[in-house]
Amino acid sequence: MRNVTKETITQAFLDYSGPETTPRLRFILEKLVQHLHDFTRETNLTHDEWRKGLELLQKTGEITDLERNEYVLLSDVLGLSSLVDMVNSPDSGTPSSVLGPFHIRGAPDLAVGGDLKKDNEGATVIVQGSVQTPDGKPVKGAEIEIWQTADNGLYSNIDENQSDFNLRGHMMVGEDGLYRFTTIRPAPYTVPDDGPVGELLHATGRQPWRPSHLHFIVTAPGFRTLVTEVFPSDDPYIDQDAVFGVREQLIMQYVEQTDLANLPDGLEVGKEVTLPFYTVDFDFILVPA
Amino acid sequence: MRNVTKETITQAFLDYSGPETTPRLRFILEKLVQHLHDFTRETNLTHDEWRKGLELLQKTGEITDLERNEYVLLSDVLGLSSLVDMVNSPDSGTPSSVLGPFHIRGAPDLAVGGDLKKDNEGATVIVQGSVQTPDGKPVKGAEIEIWQTADNGLYSNIDENQSDFNLRGHMMVGEDGLYRFTTIRPAPYTVPDDGPVGELLHATGRQPWRPSHLHFIVTAPGFRTLVTEVFPSDDPYIDQDAVFGVREQLIMQYVEQTDLANLPDGLEVGKEVTLPFYTVDFDFILVPA
Repeated sequence: MRNVTKETITQAFLDYSGPETTPRLRFILEKLVQHLHDFTRETNLTHDEWRKGLELLQKTGEITDLERNEYVLLSDVLGLSSLVDMVNSPDSGTPSSVLGPFHIRGAPDLAVGGDLKKDNEGATVIVQGSVQTPDGKPVKGAEIEIWQTADNGLYSNIDENQSDFNLRGHMMVGEDGLYRFTTIRPAPYTVPDDGPVGELLHATGRQPWRPSHLHFIVTAPGFRTLVTEVFPSDDPYIDQDAVFGVREQLIMQYVEQTDLANLPDGLEVGKEVTLPFYTVDFDFILVPA
Repeated sequence: MRNVTKETITQAFLDYSGPETTPRLRFILEKLVQHLHDFTRETNLTHDEWRKGLELLQKTGEITDLERNEYVLLSDVLGLSSLVDMVNSPDSGTPSSVLGPFHIRGAPDLAVGGDLKKDNEGATVIVQGSVQTPDGKPVKGAEIEIWQTADNGLYSNIDENQSDFNLRGHMMVGEDGLYRFTTIRPAPYTVPDDGPVGELLHATGRQPWRPSHLHFIVTAPGFRTLVTEVFPSDDPYIDQDAVFGVREQLIMQYVEQTDLANLPDGLEVGKEVTLPFYTVDFDFILVPA
């Protein structure tokens, strides 16, 4: 097109696309460029603002390495990562939430009733519940992967004072669909705010904290894999998660228990639990694949 | 916000923004995130597509260095750079067009009627016209910076076979507003297509060529600076500029001249011109600052 104008440039872009473009790529680019151009027209974006935007992307690249992906973090704080989770979640079942950068493969086996707390600081927390179908029946053959921070807000793979795989486990759930383990309460922590994403947070008066959470991946034959997190209702950051991971259905309670008679059976460390301890009841609802 | 959903996440993002955010930054981020989220909802973007998008940005960073800015190129081929030019151009006057990455400071002085052709291959082209106000009066104190490719499609700063500042000049225009110089016809060339932007072009069946063009920066006291390019109507790529730089008002003609009597006066190299030569008439209209 030789007469490119503010009004015709979006169509000019679409017209350039050749027949070898897959329909899905064409659709995505059409929507992407339509929105990018509308954004530019609606803001009358200046050259200086355009340059700053490209510089933000460039700085994001400069700080990204094998251990830190600032592009994912940028996507996280813009709500994009969580929105991608949500548009790909089924409408029923337990909602998904961000996988995050701290998952590692190879967590050790953890029996039902097993202990993750070991010698970690903090009161004992018993997390328990079931893996269910949408109509409340136990899911057979479910597996649960669990990971969380220690009391200091750090995950084992970024804290040299923790043993490998501290507070990580992989559980085969029984025929009854019930899971249970002992652990400690994880702590809130901040996303990295010493890079370009941090600059954006500071410029907009945003805090970098995430509420404390337990990470789970729940799988079972014939069901959609669930990647999620659960959050305590009394966390100080529950209403301002920097990466938009909190969902109403992912909120749980730490219930204080002051009577050892309330201790569930079948805990690996049952006799060692001291008062007060806490219980968390949370059921996972998987939907058929 | 604790109940983040597909429908509420955009508002949740906006609500996070603190009072220290400048109104302009707030407005830009509001529009950016609204469009980014709408794009994601309208495409039901998959995790795999999201990952590929972030990988494209990451690869764009990896190939970017002091000499090659692949982010600018990505912006160029998406039509973003040209759209930013257009939303910042006045409605009257000669339209602006992309500055591009080949401008360098310090071009040597070129008198009115001076010669850029020197020993470059190609027929002589006489480029001439005026620098005018919107009502057709000469602009006083105008300066014109000119740069272009050699016959091989390369600029002097990326071609070791050209002398420094070959086919580049800086002209002080006289009181009559008239400019004139001799040169050769520049050649079409391709944008770099061996990186991630090239992958995008190939995947969508797009060609990487730009039509040949003469670059100009025209300045004058009391007028808006004009950064632009002019393109010949008979260029094979005039209707498919990879970076969307062509505007109807920036198209010019190379007029073949077969009579030395048509040679304008006052050319530094007038007596050396051979037949056929070509003339290009193009007037620049500046608007008050």
